[in-house]
Amino acid sequence: MSCRYLHERTTTAAADAFQQAEVAVLPTGSVEQHGPALPLGTDLLAARAVAETVGDHPDALLLPPIPVGVSAHHRQFDGTLWTDPETFESYVADIVASAAEHGVRKAVVVNGHGGNSEALRRAARGLREEEVAFAAPWNWWSNLDALIAEELDTSLGHADEVETSMMLAVAEDLVRESALEAAEDEGGDSWGKSIQGASVGFDAIDFTESGAVGEPTAGSKEVGEKLLAHATDDLAALVEWLAEQDVDDLWPRGHK
Amino acid sequence: MSCRYLHERTTTAAADAFQQAEVAVLPTGSVEQHGPALPLGTDLLAARAVAETVGDHPDALLLPPIPVGVSAHHRQFDGTLWTDPETFESYVADIVASAAEHGVRKAVVVNGHGGNSEALRRAARGLREEEVAFAAPWNWWSNLDALIAEELDTSLGHADEVETSMMLAVAEDLVRESALEAAEDEGGDSWGKSIQGASVGFDAIDFTESGAVGEPTAGSKEVGEKLLAHATDDLAALVEWLAEQDVDDLWPRGHK
Amino acid sequence: MSCRYLHERTTTAAADAFQQAEVAVLPTGSVEQHGPALPLGTDLLAARAVAETVGDHPDALLLPPIPVGVSAHHRQFDGTLWTDPETFESYVADIVASAAEHGVRKAVVVNGHGGNSEALRRAARGLREEEVAFAAPWNWWSNLDALIAEELDTSLGHADEVETSMMLAVAEDLVRESALEAAEDEGGDSWGKSIQGASVGFDAIDFTESGAVGEPTAGSKEVGEKLLAHATDDLAALVEWLAEQDVDDLWPRGHK
Amino acid sequence: MSCRYLHERTTTAAADAFQQAEVAVLPTGSVEQHGPALPLGTDLLAARAVAETVGDHPDALLLPPIPVGVSAHHRQFDGTLWTDPETFESYVADIVASAAEHGVRKAVVVNGHGGNSEALRRAARGLREEEVAFAAPWNWWSNLDALIAEELDTSLGHADEVETSMMLAVAEDLVRESALEAAEDEGGDSWGKSIQGASVGFDAIDFTESGAVGEPTAGSKEVGEKLLAHATDDLAALVEWLAEQDVDDLWPRGHK
Amino acid sequence: MSCRYLHERTTTAAADAFQQAEVAVLPTGSVEQHGPALPLGTDLLAARAVAETVGDHPDALLLPPIPVGVSAHHRQFDGTLWTDPETFESYVADIVASAAEHGVRKAVVVNGHGGNSEALRRAARGLREEEVAFAAPWNWWSNLDALIAEELDTSLGHADEVETSMMLAVAEDLVRESALEAAEDEGGDSWGKSIQGASVGFDAIDFTESGAVGEPTAGSKEVGEKLLAHATDDLAALVEWLAEQDVDDLWPRGHK
Amino acid sequence: MSCRYLHERTTTAAADAFQQAEVAVLPTGSVEQHGPALPLGTDLLAARAVAETVGDHPDALLLPPIPVGVSAHHRQFDGTLWTDPETFESYVADIVASAAEHGVRKAVVVNGHGGNSEALRRAARGLREEEVAFAAPWNWWSNLDALIAEELDTSLGHADEVETSMMLAVAEDLVRESALEAAEDEGGDSWGKSIQGASVGFDAIDFTESGAVGEPTAGSKEVGEKLLAHATDDLAALVEWLAEQDVDDLWPRGHK
Repeated sequence: MSCRYLHERTTTAAADAFQQAEVAVLPTGSVEQHGPALPLGTDLLAARAVAETVGDHPDALLLPPIPVGVSAHHRQFDGTLWTDPETFESYVADIVASAAEHGVRKAVVVNGHGGNSEALRRAARGLREEEVAFAAPWNWWSNLDALIAEELDTSLGHADEVETSMMLAVAEDLVRESALEAAEDEGGDSWGKSIQGASVGFDAIDFTESGAVGEPTAGSKEVGEKLLAHATDDLAALVEWLAEQDVDDLWPRGHK
Repeated sequence: MSCRYLHERTTTAAADAFQQAEVAVLPTGSVEQHGPALPLGTDLLAARAVAETVGDHPDALLLPPIPVGVSAHHRQFDGTLWTDPETFESYVADIVASAAEHGVRKAVVVNGHGGNSEALRRAARGLREEEVAFAAPWNWWSNLDALIAEELDTSLGHADEVETSMMLAVAEDLVRESALEAAEDEGGDSWGKSIQGASVGFDAIDFTESGAVGEPTAGSKEVGEKLLAHATDDLAALVEWLAEQDVDDLWPRGHK
Repeated sequence: MSCRYLHERTTTAAADAFQQAEVAVLPTGSVEQHGPALPLGTDLLAARAVAETVGDHPDALLLPPIPVGVSAHHRQFDGTLWTDPETFESYVADIVASAAEHGVRKAVVVNGHGGNSEALRRAARGLREEEVAFAAPWNWWSNLDALIAEELDTSLGHADEVETSMMLAVAEDLVRESALEAAEDEGGDSWGKSIQGASVGFDAIDFTESGAVGEPTAGSKEVGEKLLAHATDDLAALVEWLAEQDVDDLWPRGHK
Repeated sequence: MSCRYLHERTTTAAADAFQQAEVAVLPTGSVEQHGPALPLGTDLLAARAVAETVGDHPDALLLPPIPVGVSAHHRQFDGTLWTDPETFESYVADIVASAAEHGVRKAVVVNGHGGNSEALRRAARGLREEEVAFAAPWNWWSNLDALIAEELDTSLGHADEVETSMMLAVAEDLVRESALEAAEDEGGDSWGKSIQGASVGFDAIDFTESGAVGEPTAGSKEVGEKLLAHATDDLAALVEWLAEQDVDDLWPRGHK
Repeated sequence: MSCRYLHERTTTAAADAFQQAEVAVLPTGSVEQHGPALPLGTDLLAARAVAETVGDHPDALLLPPIPVGVSAHHRQFDGTLWTDPETFESYVADIVASAAEHGVRKAVVVNGHGGNSEALRRAARGLREEEVAFAAPWNWWSNLDALIAEELDTSLGHADEVETSMMLAVAEDLVRESALEAAEDEGGDSWGKSIQGASVGFDAIDFTESGAVGEPTAGSKEVGEKLLAHATDDLAALVEWLAEQDVDDLWPRGHK
Repeated sequence: MSCRYLHERTTTAAADAFQQAEVAVLPTGSVEQHGPALPLGTDLLAARAVAETVGDHPDALLLPPIPVGVSAHHRQFDGTLWTDPETFESYVADIVASAAEHGVRKAVVVNGHGGNSEALRRAARGLREEEVAFAAPWNWWSNLDALIAEELDTSLGHADEVETSMMLAVAEDLVRESALEAAEDEGGDSWGKSIQGASVGFDAIDFTESGAVGEPTAGSKEVGEKLLAHATDDLAALVEWLAEQDVDDLWPRGHK
């Protein structure tokens, strides 16, 4: 077994890894409803799959995936697990800070769940203010707008054709393809609900019955593999960019 | 003097107002750098101006403006005042909850500062979970994408042509028009800084020297008045929509 | 328009102001019942009126008024808004600390509401311990005992002749003079309720039906103008005293 | 040994005591400098002495004394112990709430330290809001203004003639009478330091070198015994007043 | 792929699982030094291995493993990751509470790290007090004292023969057997350091240089398999016992 | 009266004591049911009795006893008082930190209640991390396993023969010997309740009707005096060991 993850190494081997690596990579996901066709762990599985591609990258040090995130807005659907944003923020920040204590003070949080983003930004901001670590939150689809538009003629929804494609690429046996149609038929057209631009839909159940938003049936393994490949390249490039930065240049600038 | 604001009324008059009104309206702003041409209170002044247009609306009850918000990312520029997101969230939530205790349990937070949005969403979510109040956060530009694109061929930046226009419409004497060019010349092209889609610019100073992002010189009072008029209509419509809702229909739905 | 308040200035103008000024001045009020004759914002309006008199003082820098304070003990009366003492303390402390970050580390909190005092003392104590800022809390009536006794033969109650006088001086059109008698007739004689010296009245409603405590009808605009003039002088003197202090002499002394 | 304190009883005996008593009595003090002549535990010893006089009162149930309180403002003097106001508030509230759980929901906190008062008020307010307990904070000198004026021609300072008298009455062997003169000579004239009514002295050391404020040499055991006797009567009367109240009448009143 | 874990199921399949199962099973581990021979994730891998044995048990519902725990006392060794006890407690409690919201209110936390125990007890106590869930914390070795004594003539240390045996059984390829001798030679004899029974060793580094405590070389795969088998039986029995309990009998008893 | 306790000294005398002493000694107890025969304050009285034996030790400085601790698990029995673990932890930590501010940075917490232990460890860990103080928590029975086994052929339960013996030695008049038999007959055999090693008994009432666990009738004053003598020697030895340590050697070690 090759040791992709830090926790698979001994402390002695970890010492070498911290010596060599420049960037800690922490996958974060969620366990929340993704409609009747995709697994609850869709976001976790996608983040993990993308993150593992840098498991052997000399600049990267792969930390264990954080499974449960900020998902209270899906709580009415069976199986959704959630934690408070503050707890999630602290848990992530503590883990990144631990790695910093061993000498790797730059990090990428490879996130698979949009609902985690604000908590990750807060964690990152706090760690940077204290000059503990520079931890860039990065959603695996952050740089895929063009590809998604081109391949699927859409933008990201939830449990939609984008996520269906990704799951077909990374965990095909967990996708219940026969349920994709139901997901779509009883799904929502767009995320959220707004009146004059004000968001008045707080929970997924306010705007989707199946839990999905988008056109899950339009997904395909082929597109999923393209998404994965592109995300993988993006992550490697991001890790390499961070590896090149002097950490002192990443701390907050002083008063103007 | 007509009493637009709750705090201008006596408790006796307030009793009547709470009887009649359906929706509390709370303006929230910020005091933060808006480049060399616009006042620090730009977001506060805009929110206040828009909110005051419903001061006499029979469905609305106007609460006092909250001046300082979540602006730490502008702290390197002179004059920026900021508070923690948690404190801002609690302050807003407490005020909305107070109004609810007197019988008005629906609210619009008329927000003038994007940096406040996440804290407002958290406040709203918490108030809704506890069935204390339904407080929709609404940025005055939330429904103006099309108008902004049409009039100014852009989308919202910071201290840009949109905000310059708005300030020329609501507080012209506080705009230092002679500084608009400097604002633009030393300003940023777009908000934030990203690598492969990961945000690596946390503070305004990371991507703008003047503090502005956009083309402030392209602003005009004429456009500002259109923005204000449109926002005003949007707010009235939002207040009226909320007024028609049964508050019990606004609470979270139970488990599926 | 002259720029009395910081938020009316641009960041560039603010830079100059922070260079020149020595003392930040932050008005804090409340929005709480003041009986049937005085506006809910009495404390806010008074604090603001007093504070604005140093708007052009070369030593002073005027921060935006904080409207809502620690008023839960008035919550049974319509229109009262309140926040937790901790939230109020943090909000004030954050704002004063922001100004300190730009170089003005001495402050006066011009307070209009007795219920805020303890939270302001805690904020001040915390800022001083950390050597962030020296923020003296000051109620506008703090130095007026003699004047109040002389003019009105009383000491401060609530919504009483002192506050009625002040409101007649600073916001006459918001006073419902016809209701002063009712305020008095159904008001309390003295603040609180005690048994053998133990306070057993926690809320205003425990000892006043109208919300007032004292003799509101005894107030007059003429007295109000004297109060305002005296308070104004006091504030200027306080600002000047602080301006002369070396901030290092204001930090806590070391162990004896 | 007679069991004055709850903790001297077994759980079985306590069951009877909770059955019979109506009012829990909790002494709270401080361990803080009281100048060179009085013991650090002056406030604790006084509160304990007064509280113990109701140890056999059928309406009262005596809880163990809380020794350390809110005394950071004396921290520069050797031997002062202090805790955060929040911690003190929670500790007291938890203890009172425990007694309430066993059926005694009315309480007097017999307090010996002015610095504790605000935290005690907050504890009391919180317990009352939740309808857990009605816990009146009461300083042993709360009702002694007239007596103190008559006997000593003064009002309460710190480690002054009032406290010296009390200590001579309750713990004479802990008073170093030979040091009273030094306490007075290097002491302060009045508590605090103010400029235009604004408090600018935060710590005792800002206005007293010896730690005392007042005229300690004017104290006497005879006066102390009068103070103790009066305070004792006051406490009994307070306990009896509370015993007669129906607890439901003590909870907060609803909205007007 | 069979779906052992909840997150591998869709929300629809999860609905069935929550219908059938009685007990949620949550594995918790740590990522902390286990000397030069065992992987950092020893506790995580052991907890996961034991927990997965009930993946198909009809009474059980397997939640995703929580990787990082309360390990600050190992922080001086490379690779150790840790979080605050409060954060860990909240994270676990939130996850268990989520499952309870879907109808499964009994849980076993299958824990692999002694340092997590107190936080797990607190989480369990809190969930029980609120009658949210009954979540018994259980360390996989909790019932193995006799077996460990019999097979290895010892009791549990750290990274010792017990853990070495377990790792050889569940993740043999991650054990660096050649380093076992060094682990032992530079390891500690017993956990902690005490003087007259007082613990004065707070961190592992205070009493072990290699990170191990015990005799790692005495471990064997054969013993590990016995440990695993016994723990597996214990867990099944525990799950079955819980499945039989009426949840109402598990809530706290009322006052005696 | 000799001044055993710090609070019995003046600040001037305390200055000398802090000069001479090396170790602060803080007794912590509980007020919680100890069955029908032993006083609620058993743990407090025992801790106090042991701690007072170093009241005159030149290395020691005796702080006032903290009466109420972490005892919610006894709350169903009359008279039990309890506080949150966090509050207890903070209260103890603040007191120890106060002593440290006056120059004595080593401490022993002489604890009489097992339920306090975890909170004391957390307090100690926090104080050590911040290099404020080294505060070893020590239960008076920590080093008495052998003696207890030899004299009573048992290990510590609750309100059992060990505690009965100790109370007969330190507060004989508070023991209701006639109730010892009932304590035993309706008591539990062992502390807690477990299924396959998992603790499923959270409160004392889950496993004892009388509140006692063990054989209270087997206790004797003679054994109690031996326990006290041994504990006393242990404490003196612990104080002396700490007195000899250079505090810098007690702080956490740096990264390996």
